Amino acid sequence: MAGTVTVPGSSVPSTPLLKDELDIVIPTIRNLDFLEMWRPFFQPYHLIIVQDGDPSKVIKVPEGFDYELYNRNDINRILGPKASCISFKDSACRCFGYMVSKKKYVFTIDDDCFVAKDPSGKDINALEQHIKNLLSPSTPFFFNTLYDPYREGADFVRGYPFSLREGAPTAVSHGLWLNIPDYDAPTQMVKPRERNSRYVDAVLTIPKGTLFPMCGMNLAFDRQLIGPAMYFGLMGDGQPIGRYDDMWAGWCVKVICDHLSLGVKTGLPYLWHSKASNPFVNLKKEYKGIFWQEDIIPFFQSATLSKECDTVQKCYISLSEQVREKLGKIDPYFVKLADAMVTWIEAWDELNPSAAAASDVAAENGKAAK
Amino acid sequence: MAGTVTVPGSSVPSTPLLKDELDIVIPTIRNLDFLEMWRPFFQPYHLIIVQDGDPSKVIKVPEGFDYELYNRNDINRILGPKASCISFKDSACRCFGYMVSKKKYVFTIDDDCFVAKDPSGKDINALEQHIKNLLSPSTPFFFNTLYDPYREGADFVRGYPFSLREGAPTAVSHGLWLNIPDYDAPTQMVKPRERNSRYVDAVLTIPKGTLFPMCGMNLAFDRQLIGPAMYFGLMGDGQPIGRYDDMWAGWCVKVICDHLSLGVKTGLPYLWHSKASNPFVNLKKEYKGIFWQEDIIPFFQSATLSKECDTVQKCYISLSEQVREKLGKIDPYFVKLADAMVTWIEAWDELNPSAAAASDVAAENGKAAK
Repeated sequence: MAGTVTVPGSSVPSTPLLKDELDIVIPTIRNLDFLEMWRPFFQPYHLIIVQDGDPSKVIKVPEGFDYELYNRNDINRILGPKASCISFKDSACRCFGYMVSKKKYVFTIDDDCFVAKDPSGKDINALEQHIKNLLSPSTPFFFNTLYDPYREGADFVRGYPFSLREGAPTAVSHGLWLNIPDYDAPTQMVKPRERNSRYVDAVLTIPKGTLFPMCGMNLAFDRQLIGPAMYFGLMGDGQPIGRYDDMWAGWCVKVICDHLSLGVKTGLPYLWHSKASNPFVNLKKEYKGIFWQEDIIPFFQSATLSKECDTVQKCYISLSEQVREKLGKIDPYFVKLADAMVTWIEAWDELNPSAAAASDVAAENGKAAK
Repeated sequence: MAGTVTVPGSSVPSTPLLKDELDIVIPTIRNLDFLEMWRPFFQPYHLIIVQDGDPSKVIKVPEGFDYELYNRNDINRILGPKASCISFKDSACRCFGYMVSKKKYVFTIDDDCFVAKDPSGKDINALEQHIKNLLSPSTPFFFNTLYDPYREGADFVRGYPFSLREGAPTAVSHGLWLNIPDYDAPTQMVKPRERNSRYVDAVLTIPKGTLFPMCGMNLAFDRQLIGPAMYFGLMGDGQPIGRYDDMWAGWCVKVICDHLSLGVKTGLPYLWHSKASNPFVNLKKEYKGIFWQEDIIPFFQSATLSKECDTVQKCYISLSEQVREKLGKIDPYFVKLADAMVTWIEAWDELNPSAAAASDVAAENGKAAK
């Protein structure tokens, strides 16, 4: 049965967590054989596959998975002119899947990522750990030296203010990678043989006011809390830059989470990243980003959002205006990106009308209450 | 020979790191039998023992250790009227040891802390790990998701700005505890049987702008960089509060490190904390602190230091003025504490005249260069 999973070594079938509330989004250009290894963990869930590149190619999905698949023709048909905000020939196209999902939670994973083992040799159920991370609060306002205080066997240490122990809702769970680390092209070139073999048994909240490099390989988030900010930007075909899609989303998301008092966690779960992408190809995609990020990061570190920005959409539109005004001076690309950010929000609200209405009502109520 | 240690399982004697540049400071009221277990790691180093309580009691130190010992009579004799800034009947007295040390680095440890084992069963050389932490840079300005990028097998991940990869000098290395976690009295009472058994194999920098609860049980720092801010406040005998000595130091230290672009690390090394202190006694000591910290932490979160504060001493005096003005309204204790902060700096400069002169020269040079 799709609704139950038999726990290995146990005769009791357990119902998978959030089975009807979470979509798995996978961007791909190839057959999804990698799903075989994930079958025990993913099969109960619905998959949204975003096919990149040639739409006439047929992507094979292993038997028994429940999925919907969108290729470029589908994206163009569904979004019309607004499809311009969805990247082509870059894994940034995955964010189309976030937009068409109707679930509260999204987990996204790359198709070169496999099940890793914990130090005891047990297969890691990455999705289960992401769900645990999302369902327990974050602690963005003060650092806890024993890491996640909500985890079994841990708590807040001496000196942690009691008023902050309820924590904040968690919007993002950022997982890590064993084997091939997520390095940029220069580091790949300098350290071609480096592998990540260190299993750090921790989940921690990235403190308020601190930016981080968010990788899209192994990422889960609460669509209702932060979905409209999870835009992966303009990358790949026709754009001067690639491999900064998840970084861009991470900077925007973190600034907005900080403003709305939402939490972002990083650490567990690990997955097994199987192969390094070509560092020469990567360098070509990255090199403008390597320069630009020196300005983009200070820009996001000093970006501010007004009190009127009380929904993710409003925050995002405000950020797009700041991008146009301040980053537009660096390169015309950022003006185009700012336009695309607005288009993205318009498309999001079109495909998610009830959420948009609810967010308007919430904003109205907020105003009335003031 | 005191100068060499034979590495177990090896015939090559290795010279201990920073042997002549680091003091181990231990506050105590009892015989130091706990040093037996630390002998392979501590014996090459010089110890500064700060005897608390009755000065007529004789503290026994195991044979073969090189140490100096100060009791209350010594503190009163050396500091004269300024001895009022050194707490009595509280482990806060340990900071006297920081002041009389003539070394660049200090490691301080409680006498109920023993050698822990890593997951492979090997004894952890906590001091060696602290030294590694202090000698490698910190990364306070941007979060690295693979933790310490300077550690073997790790690096900066994709999206980490290249301009920040030199890092910042590390001023503080905060270690953790297996077995008895460092909980406050209410948490001890609610979870009397909780033990910390999770070995998290990570060292990380606490980001700029984020405060943390600094525990004095297992702590190392660079005296030259941050020593004058490592004041453990007025606690214990005659004071309305206890068990906030290290917290106070941690708040001040973090604000000053952030201002001076110095790094604070937490994580490895672990030691074995053997016994929980009495939660009822602790509650009596802590309860005012539990209320006060709700105001103290926002105070430190919003404290600012001017550009003129270009030495630790100047930063600390500026903080003392803000404490007097803002926290003095909460309780007269903070006015007394602000006075003691000034006395501490005067005493520090008196006992460390060359450092004080050097810091004045640096400040003068700084002015001249502007």
